[in-house]
Amino acid sequence: MHHALTSFTAPFTASGRAALVPPPPWHYAGWLCNVAVSCDTANSPSVVPSGLGRLTGAGCVHFADWQATTDGRELLDPVYAQYRETIIIVEIERPDGTLANFCPFIWVDQDISLMRGLLQGWPKKFGSTFLTRSLPIEHAAAAPLRAGTRLGASLCVKDRRLVEAELALTGNPGRPLGFLANKTIGTVGWPDLAKAGQPPHLRWLLPDIQDKVTSDWHEATAEIRVLDHPVEELSLLGDVQAQAASVGWIGITINGVRELAG
Amino acid sequence: MHHALTSFTAPFTASGRAALVPPPPWHYAGWLCNVAVSCDTANSPSVVPSGLGRLTGAGCVHFADWQATTDGRELLDPVYAQYRETIIIVEIERPDGTLANFCPFIWVDQDISLMRGLLQGWPKKFGSTFLTRSLPIEHAAAAPLRAGTRLGASLCVKDRRLVEAELALTGNPGRPLGFLANKTIGTVGWPDLAKAGQPPHLRWLLPDIQDKVTSDWHEATAEIRVLDHPVEELSLLGDVQAQAASVGWIGITINGVRELAG
Amino acid sequence: MHHALTSFTAPFTASGRAALVPPPPWHYAGWLCNVAVSCDTANSPSVVPSGLGRLTGAGCVHFADWQATTDGRELLDPVYAQYRETIIIVEIERPDGTLANFCPFIWVDQDISLMRGLLQGWPKKFGSTFLTRSLPIEHAAAAPLRAGTRLGASLCVKDRRLVEAELALTGNPGRPLGFLANKTIGTVGWPDLAKAGQPPHLRWLLPDIQDKVTSDWHEATAEIRVLDHPVEELSLLGDVQAQAASVGWIGITINGVRELAG
Amino acid sequence: MHHALTSFTAPFTASGRAALVPPPPWHYAGWLCNVAVSCDTANSPSVVPSGLGRLTGAGCVHFADWQATTDGRELLDPVYAQYRETIIIVEIERPDGTLANFCPFIWVDQDISLMRGLLQGWPKKFGSTFLTRSLPIEHAAAAPLRAGTRLGASLCVKDRRLVEAELALTGNPGRPLGFLANKTIGTVGWPDLAKAGQPPHLRWLLPDIQDKVTSDWHEATAEIRVLDHPVEELSLLGDVQAQAASVGWIGITINGVRELAG
Repeated sequence: MHHALTSFTAPFTASGRAALVPPPPWHYAGWLCNVAVSCDTANSPSVVPSGLGRLTGAGCVHFADWQATTDGRELLDPVYAQYRETIIIVEIERPDGTLANFCPFIWVDQDISLMRGLLQGWPKKFGSTFLTRSLPIEHAAAAPLRAGTRLGASLCVKDRRLVEAELALTGNPGRPLGFLANKTIGTVGWPDLAKAGQPPHLRWLLPDIQDKVTSDWHEATAEIRVLDHPVEELSLLGDVQAQAASVGWIGITINGVRELAG
Repeated sequence: MHHALTSFTAPFTASGRAALVPPPPWHYAGWLCNVAVSCDTANSPSVVPSGLGRLTGAGCVHFADWQATTDGRELLDPVYAQYRETIIIVEIERPDGTLANFCPFIWVDQDISLMRGLLQGWPKKFGSTFLTRSLPIEHAAAAPLRAGTRLGASLCVKDRRLVEAELALTGNPGRPLGFLANKTIGTVGWPDLAKAGQPPHLRWLLPDIQDKVTSDWHEATAEIRVLDHPVEELSLLGDVQAQAASVGWIGITINGVRELAG
Repeated sequence: MHHALTSFTAPFTASGRAALVPPPPWHYAGWLCNVAVSCDTANSPSVVPSGLGRLTGAGCVHFADWQATTDGRELLDPVYAQYRETIIIVEIERPDGTLANFCPFIWVDQDISLMRGLLQGWPKKFGSTFLTRSLPIEHAAAAPLRAGTRLGASLCVKDRRLVEAELALTGNPGRPLGFLANKTIGTVGWPDLAKAGQPPHLRWLLPDIQDKVTSDWHEATAEIRVLDHPVEELSLLGDVQAQAASVGWIGITINGVRELAG
Repeated sequence: MHHALTSFTAPFTASGRAALVPPPPWHYAGWLCNVAVSCDTANSPSVVPSGLGRLTGAGCVHFADWQATTDGRELLDPVYAQYRETIIIVEIERPDGTLANFCPFIWVDQDISLMRGLLQGWPKKFGSTFLTRSLPIEHAAAAPLRAGTRLGASLCVKDRRLVEAELALTGNPGRPLGFLANKTIGTVGWPDLAKAGQPPHLRWLLPDIQDKVTSDWHEATAEIRVLDHPVEELSLLGDVQAQAASVGWIGITINGVRELAG
């Protein structure tokens, strides 16, 4: 069947102008609060595909306040550019003994980012993320980047708070954590409604990162709390405890992905 | 590669509890304002895949206020059940001369419905829909089902109003319109980021409707207005004029889909 | 100082067209889930002004899905008409021994209703309310009005769930409960920023109800749960237990208020 | 009548913990895009109280992305701290010939800020504001503070876009504009529902600013567009044209207000 409706994603039109997501490259820049955590490994087979690896007990919760653009147009109409999300990263040991990151859960507040993430293997659903921003002025409401500044972050999914964190800057340099520190494997799979009872075929992807810049990272101490939820399964990670934290800005450009051999 | 993460959709866990969308059957019930419209056919090849058919110049705009559930649990926690959407239906003539419906554009306000729709071939993006409800009491704010009652409906996409309609009930019986009156063909396709430059392979689906009930439909006169939008492509339908309208309630259960031969 | 900017509320312009709230009459119609509750009376002086009365230990939680209009225009542009709210009603014994209702807490999701409520003495803040709707069709997602139908309702304030309820219809006639069954005293007071340290002068109001119609009420059994919250003070009511429940539709018109003698 | 429910605003409890707004001091810090504009003066009496002054034809549109806190607690739970708003400022000539700012219209997206603003004389209603942020990294999505960077801003009120602006940084130092450059007179008035037909008594206030810090301001060129709206009255300012623009950060603390002599 011939057609020329070549939109990258739905809706499918000749111009592709209305497509929810245009093709890469995708440029992202944002403010991040990163909380490295320890977690339980007992439920590893329920969270990480068995062929992909197993939980090491390390991970990271990122709270992110993003701007994304393709050719710059979204920065001129920022309802298209801005969104916030909470990213759960777990460290896994691959069958070959190497370490990688894996994202079992992530929640975002914008449709464009939801779809763009799913295409890359970030298993996005909707959630409401808030994180304190640090502004470059010395004022009681500005949370400036210096020792003693305190910041908060939270995630709410379907009208229930799921994660909350508090951070206090130490004044020391910080480290990149979580997906900022190692490659992160994504999982893509779409069920086919025409084939009842068949789970989606899952594929694993690695991003093709074209451009990455960061500000300095600023160290923080942190406390984090995961709350019960009747639908979300973050509890599969058991007792989650903050181990380190940092805040700062990152810019990253994604050009595509490559598939991991199965 | 072996694994047992059989979630129907992301995120992928052993139990599937957190999956954004559980597998069908999906039960929907809602209040609908239906505005049958005429539209231009000049841009047919830009809206309808050429192999699938061509615009006849008839169509329908549905404003819908839904509840959806799988096994009933969503009705006990209705943040999971309720959403609103605006559905654009165009009538097409198939290559074999038969008539069918096709959905080029649709906007919804909930993540679950977004994904469930995409799997069925409804090309959903986010938008904000409002529609007056008719309540079964005689009061100035209740819009009761009788001659003279006036109702409104609107769609806003990315902070810009895109469609608005006004209806006035005539007191006469109405007709099912749009997707209520004929089968609607859906379009599914997912781009593969690992294959740069390749548009998604599109497939056409017909829903497997298991159960369908409606209230009486109530006739209305209507005016509808499509506004300019820098991203959305509803303008491909040219001059859109209301031809008929009805309001009422429908319940429908979707069990799956079957694929149209290509 | 002379001026002719006679808007009923801000913003103040000559025409008053943009005023957040136009003057009464205000017509409301909505779908309500009412859960009569028992509560503790120990904190009565912290919730009810001492001169006004004291808690009896009875009360009601209403989940409401409203349409409101002035002259009908809001029903043609329903983004102006529709909102949802959760209303806490406590029964109080007045100093003269009579019983009345009092509203210590209420949360709504629309600015117009927030202000209109504050003017009448409903102490509104923002919150997200969901409640299952009953549609007049027999379908798995329609929650029809018959024995065995189950419905849910919830309130979330600042990204934390605060109240959730489950109801099951008994098939028997129900009763009007809470503010549907007795007059409700409102509290109005505005702090004056020009007078530092002075709490607002509180006044008590009774609504002037011009028109009230209801559907039949339908009896339900119910369970209700109040969750901890770091800011909200619903916990002042102690252990809240469902005692009775009903669902149905109401239309009401408010013409103004009259002040209770202090 | 005695009572000890001394909340600053509703709801009124003994502790005041749940009050929508705690008493000042209020600390604000935010990122601002400021577009100085020219406007028509023909409708001055419809926008500015006649005793207060008259339009000079100068003004400013501010798009602001704020954090606000009282004692720091909101920065640890930022759903309480963060909001965005669009502020319309007009310059007026007072009866004594001096110049001042006046705010006829303002739209915000958070209940706390709505009420805190109304108490100070900012006539707030709800609206959705977006503005591009400048992040301190050199990246395609970061809109860094240097010549050539382009930013956008928009306001949507009740699902209709009302204002949109585009800015381009020149690389030159910028100036404080609008409310950043001169004192701004606020208008407070609350209708009394017990007194039908009586418009609210309006009072004029000047803020008591305790602490004010800014970053450098960065100059921009700008274009701004005001769109038609069936309810909002920004059209009273006639043809609005950008004259100058700047971006930067400000921190400000409000301690209270003083009343202008009538």
